[in-house]
Amino acid sequence: MEVIKSNSELKVWRASARGDTALVPTMGSFHNGHLSLIQRARQRADTVIVSLFVNPTQFGHGEDLETYPRDLERDAALAEERGANCLFAPPVHEMYGRLHATYVYWPELGSRLCGETRPNHFQGVATIVLKLFNLVRPDLAVFGRKDGQQVLLIQRLVADLNLDIRIVVSPTVREPDGLAMSSRNINLTKSERSQALGLYAALRACKERILRGEWASESLVGTMHEALGQFPGLRPEYVEIVDRDSLCSVESVDTNVMVAAAGGVGSTRLIDNLWTYEMEGAIGVEL
Amino acid sequence: MEVIKSNSELKVWRASARGDTALVPTMGSFHNGHLSLIQRARQRADTVIVSLFVNPTQFGHGEDLETYPRDLERDAALAEERGANCLFAPPVHEMYGRLHATYVYWPELGSRLCGETRPNHFQGVATIVLKLFNLVRPDLAVFGRKDGQQVLLIQRLVADLNLDIRIVVSPTVREPDGLAMSSRNINLTKSERSQALGLYAALRACKERILRGEWASESLVGTMHEALGQFPGLRPEYVEIVDRDSLCSVESVDTNVMVAAAGGVGSTRLIDNLWTYEMEGAIGVEL
Repeated sequence: MEVIKSNSELKVWRASARGDTALVPTMGSFHNGHLSLIQRARQRADTVIVSLFVNPTQFGHGEDLETYPRDLERDAALAEERGANCLFAPPVHEMYGRLHATYVYWPELGSRLCGETRPNHFQGVATIVLKLFNLVRPDLAVFGRKDGQQVLLIQRLVADLNLDIRIVVSPTVREPDGLAMSSRNINLTKSERSQALGLYAALRACKERILRGEWASESLVGTMHEALGQFPGLRPEYVEIVDRDSLCSVESVDTNVMVAAAGGVGSTRLIDNLWTYEMEGAIGVEL
Repeated sequence: MEVIKSNSELKVWRASARGDTALVPTMGSFHNGHLSLIQRARQRADTVIVSLFVNPTQFGHGEDLETYPRDLERDAALAEERGANCLFAPPVHEMYGRLHATYVYWPELGSRLCGETRPNHFQGVATIVLKLFNLVRPDLAVFGRKDGQQVLLIQRLVADLNLDIRIVVSPTVREPDGLAMSSRNINLTKSERSQALGLYAALRACKERILRGEWASESLVGTMHEALGQFPGLRPEYVEIVDRDSLCSVESVDTNVMVAAAGGVGSTRLIDNLWTYEMEGAIGVEL
């Protein structure tokens, strides 16, 4: 596996890559969720490029840019083990020149859900992802469903900006007790860890009620708030049931919604979600 | 010359285009300025694609989107005459789907100069130009220097978003008396037409003083306002001397500035500019 740190080297390497190329954009600090994305890319493409870049423009003031976990050597070894052909890990100045002034954003969709408390977050995500798309020119790119709003917005970006890239959405990988894997989980103390499970508990309760035929959003959100009430150490930020195209709240669940929840435990912010889909004429649920 | 109206047809056509491909993005209503862009593209590339799209997202409320001049048949004949291989003229719904939500912008640079009175104009420009770049995948794209801020921002976009496209800046084409050609000039009445010359008169006066060694911006801006005073029918909007990278005002002229002016005559808004450059160790001026 090649480790590349500059755009010019990447260009040379890319020109020699064969067959379909998959990009897996990451901020490093790999857990099994990231590794499942790399494995999925490995299954779907001839060449797999993993990018590792802790993107400063998607962190807000007071957020954890400085303390975000970083371990390039460990990440490189893990990426290679799962079959990556290239790890692209540029320094910040390579991605953002002194005069950088161009940004990509979703004026409406980027201010919903997580965007309400993280006003420039998705603008930073869109900008770095588009830069990576243009540098790597992948045939497909793999994102985790755990960052649900992010992957929906990236699908929107690809369609709106006429990019010829297939977006592959990979299922959320969970700890044995259901906690969605996140690089930020290592910041949780033992007592925080037990409270962090609240989001999963709420979504599981929601899933069970949907599968039993309850589709009214108000009732389902009520169920989730009840479940969250069992986790007093978790400060709920939002619990919403939205259409996956518009990200607007819906009155009742159909086969194209995301049920998304976010909350804080200690100084750690956590998110989780479920998606519905059509399954033999009925509503299926992916948690 | 092929006339193409859908993205899918364009994709097929593009795949068969040979050699270097140049894109000339336009809003139609061709005058000699546009035709000089097409000719320049013809000289620099094997295949020339002219796009013609009156882009609604770059017009503000109360601006002239509805009355913007349109004449596809005449434009197609002129483009073919100058050697275009393809005219891409999609309808609005082909470029902006119902769910379109992604935009490109320059939070700082896009609100300077013309952006002060046209708050979403450059966001619309950036978004449509990036869409066209992604659809056409040109090796180079030709823009007129007359829309000076636009071409500087597009150069910024290409660098910032890591696009592999060469931006060719083509000189401003003028009427015999110096008025910069613009599709909006046809809206001028005879008396307005004589007042419209004010921007050119001011820039010519500025050019003369620069070439005689006056580099202090304050003094040069004073000269331009004096010249504009001779044209009482022209309402000056701005007269600024800015660095071409930062678009920030500079105290004195060097070899990398744009002197830009905008004003209104009747209901028509006009812009014009000059660029300085290095010429044998001295400051040269392109008006």
